[in-house]
Amino acid sequence: MDAAAGAPPRGFPEAEFAQRTEKAQAAMAEAGLDALLLTTEPEVRYFSGFLTQFWQSPTRPWFLVVPAKGKPVAVIPTIGADCMARSWIDDIRTWSSPQPDDDGGSLLAQALTELAGKTGRIGLAKGKETQLRMPLADFERLTWSLPGMVFEDATAILRNLRMVKSEREIAKIAYVCDVVSGAFEAAPQLFAAGQSDIEVFRSFKIECLKRGVDDVSYLVGGAGQGGYGDIISPPSGRTLREGDVLILDTGCLFDGYFCDFDRNFAIGRADESARRAYDVVWRATEAGLQAARPGVTCAELFAAMQGVLEGGGAKGNDVGRLGHGLGMQLTEWPSNTPWDRTVLEPGMVLTLEPGMTFAEGKVMVHEENIVVREEGPELLTRRAPPELPVI
Amino acid sequence: MDAAAGAPPRGFPEAEFAQRTEKAQAAMAEAGLDALLLTTEPEVRYFSGFLTQFWQSPTRPWFLVVPAKGKPVAVIPTIGADCMARSWIDDIRTWSSPQPDDDGGSLLAQALTELAGKTGRIGLAKGKETQLRMPLADFERLTWSLPGMVFEDATAILRNLRMVKSEREIAKIAYVCDVVSGAFEAAPQLFAAGQSDIEVFRSFKIECLKRGVDDVSYLVGGAGQGGYGDIISPPSGRTLREGDVLILDTGCLFDGYFCDFDRNFAIGRADESARRAYDVVWRATEAGLQAARPGVTCAELFAAMQGVLEGGGAKGNDVGRLGHGLGMQLTEWPSNTPWDRTVLEPGMVLTLEPGMTFAEGKVMVHEENIVVREEGPELLTRRAPPELPVI
Repeated sequence: MDAAAGAPPRGFPEAEFAQRTEKAQAAMAEAGLDALLLTTEPEVRYFSGFLTQFWQSPTRPWFLVVPAKGKPVAVIPTIGADCMARSWIDDIRTWSSPQPDDDGGSLLAQALTELAGKTGRIGLAKGKETQLRMPLADFERLTWSLPGMVFEDATAILRNLRMVKSEREIAKIAYVCDVVSGAFEAAPQLFAAGQSDIEVFRSFKIECLKRGVDDVSYLVGGAGQGGYGDIISPPSGRTLREGDVLILDTGCLFDGYFCDFDRNFAIGRADESARRAYDVVWRATEAGLQAARPGVTCAELFAAMQGVLEGGGAKGNDVGRLGHGLGMQLTEWPSNTPWDRTVLEPGMVLTLEPGMTFAEGKVMVHEENIVVREEGPELLTRRAPPELPVI
Repeated sequence: MDAAAGAPPRGFPEAEFAQRTEKAQAAMAEAGLDALLLTTEPEVRYFSGFLTQFWQSPTRPWFLVVPAKGKPVAVIPTIGADCMARSWIDDIRTWSSPQPDDDGGSLLAQALTELAGKTGRIGLAKGKETQLRMPLADFERLTWSLPGMVFEDATAILRNLRMVKSEREIAKIAYVCDVVSGAFEAAPQLFAAGQSDIEVFRSFKIECLKRGVDDVSYLVGGAGQGGYGDIISPPSGRTLREGDVLILDTGCLFDGYFCDFDRNFAIGRADESARRAYDVVWRATEAGLQAARPGVTCAELFAAMQGVLEGGGAKGNDVGRLGHGLGMQLTEWPSNTPWDRTVLEPGMVLTLEPGMTFAEGKVMVHEENIVVREEGPELLTRRAPPELPVI
C-alpha cells in the first residue's frame, strides 16, 4: 500500500496566494477597508501558506495583515520565522514570544499604522463561524492604543473568498476523500462484534494513516442496538454487539485540507427500522445530488433533502442543518439550512448531510462530500451503498 | 501489544467536578464575581467533563456558566445535549444551532441574568493564553444587551485552578507520557536513512496509536545535516539522510490529556557539534530536574537551565521559554521564563524544554514532562538517553 500513490503536490504556487490576496484587496476596496487583520490559523494560512500544528499551543498570538496593495505582512513570534520564511511572504516581523506585557501588540499596532494609516479602517472576522484568536484583553488594548482606527467586521470578504475553492484546493480535498472512502470500504476487515468501540476507533485511525492521510484530526461516532443516539461523543469502552448500528464520522487531513463524511454499518444483522431510516437518508442525499447545481441556494438544497426526510417519517434533526462547506476547516460556510440564501457556485465544496431521528433516542445520519461544477455536483467521496451494509 | 494495558480509568467521578467548581466559587467570592462565563473547550470540559472533538467545527458557540453557588449550567446547541447529559451537569439549556440571528445569545443572556442578576459581575478569560470562542460580534451584542452587567477578566482564577492537577489528571498524563516514551524507544525500528520525512511522521503516528494513545494531535519536527533549523513545520517530503539529526516533538492524547515532549536521533552517524549541543540541553534538563521543587519560581527554574545553556555556548533560543505547563491543552500556564514568578506547587505538571541555537541555522531542543511533588520532581516521561542516540 503506497501511501503517496496519486497524492496531489503539497503546497501551492505563489500565484495562488497572489490571486487570493488580489481578490481580497478588490473586495476591501469596495468595502472601503485599508487593511485586513487576520488572527486565526485558517485565515493566516489562506493568505500565506503558513502550515503548522503549532497553533494548538494557545500561548502565542499570530498576526497577518493584508494591506490595500501588495503582499500580506506577517507579525509573528520568532519561533515561526523559519517556517514563515518558506512561504511567499517577504515582510516578516517577529518578536520573542511569550512576553508578559506586550506580546506582539506594539509591533502589530506599528504595522497597522504603517499599512493603513492612523485613521485606517481595519477589517477583521467578527461574524458567524469566526473567532478572534488573541486574548480579548490584548485586542481591547490594541484598539485603545489606535484611537483613530476603526475595526469592523470583514467576515463577508473572507467567507465569499474561501467558499469557492481553487482546483488545487479541490484536488487535496478529493484525495483525502478518496483515501478515507477506501478505509471505510475496509470496514468488514476492521470492525466486528466483541470489539470495544475504543479499538474500533483506533483501528480506523491506523487504517486511514496507512492509506495516506496526514492526520485523523476528527473521529466521532456511536453505536447502539438498532441505532445510535449521539454522534459527537468519543468512544466509551462499550463492546460492539450483534444488532448494533455503528456510525463513524471523520475529518481526515491531507496537506491541511479536510474531508468530512460518515458511514453506517450494521453489526451482524440490521433491524427493519434502521434499514428503513438508512434508505431515507440515502435517498435524501440523492435528492441533494440532484439539487446541488450552480444558481441554487443552500435553502433550496436543504428543502430538496428535507422533503425526502419528512416523507420518510423523520422525527426531527438535532444537527441543525443538512450539510455545510468544508476545506481548511472541518466545517466552513455555508450551511444547508432554510435560512442560508448562499447561491451555489462552481468550486464550492460541500457536505450533503441528511440526518433524522427515526425512533426514541435513535438517529440516522448520512454524509457525502461534493464539489459544485458547472454541470452539477461531482462526488468527492465514493458513494455509500444504497442499503445499510451488514458486517 | 494490548493498547489498554495499564490505562487509568476514563473520565472523573462527580466529586472531582464538584471540587473544581467549589474552588472556583471560593475564588469568585474573593474576587466579587457573580458568575463565570466559559466559552472554550478546555474551560467547559474542566467544569463539566464534556469531552468531544466536535469543537473542531467552528460553526456553533458553546457556553458554560458557573454560578456563585451550585452546579454549572450548560447553554449549548441541541446536537450536544446527549453528550452533555452524560456529564455531571443537570441544567442543560439547548437551542437548535446554527441560527442566523440569535445563535444562543438570548438564551445565554437569560441564564446570566437569572444566575448573576441584572447588575451581576461576570468573569471570563481575557488574559494571556486565552481566547473568546464565540464570534466577537455576538459577544459585543451580548454585552450591549446586558447594560447593567460588568464583564471582567477572570484568567487568574482559571489559571490558578487548572495549573495544579489532581492525581486523576496526573495519572492520565503519566499514562500518555509512558506510552509515547515506548514509541520513541522503538525509533531504531521505525526510522532509517532513505525514508521520506512524511513516512517518518506517519510511522510514528501509527506506532503511538498501536501502543494506546487516543490521538496523535500534534506532531512536528525537522531533520537536517548535522542539525535542524525549524521545529514547528510539517514534513516536507525530504528524504532522511545519513548524518541528519532528526527531532520529533509530539502531543499525544489519552482521555483528553496531553503529553508534550520530543526526542532527537542522529541518522547513521552524529557530528561532534550536534553531540555537544545534545549534551548541553540534556544537562540543562538535569539542572531543571534538580531545581523543580515546591517553592521555586518558574523564573528560578528558567535560570537553572539557562545557566547550563549559556555555559554550553548557546547562541540564543527562538522558542521564547524553556518549558511550560501542560494538561488539557498542549501548552498551558505557567511559562519557564525570566519574568514568570509563578511558584511551583505539588501537582503542577510541566515540561522542561531547554533549547539552543548551536550553529548558524541549527537548533537543539530537548524536552521532558514532570509533575512537581513535595519531595521534588517526578519524571512522567522516560528520561532520554544522555548521549545523542544514533540509529
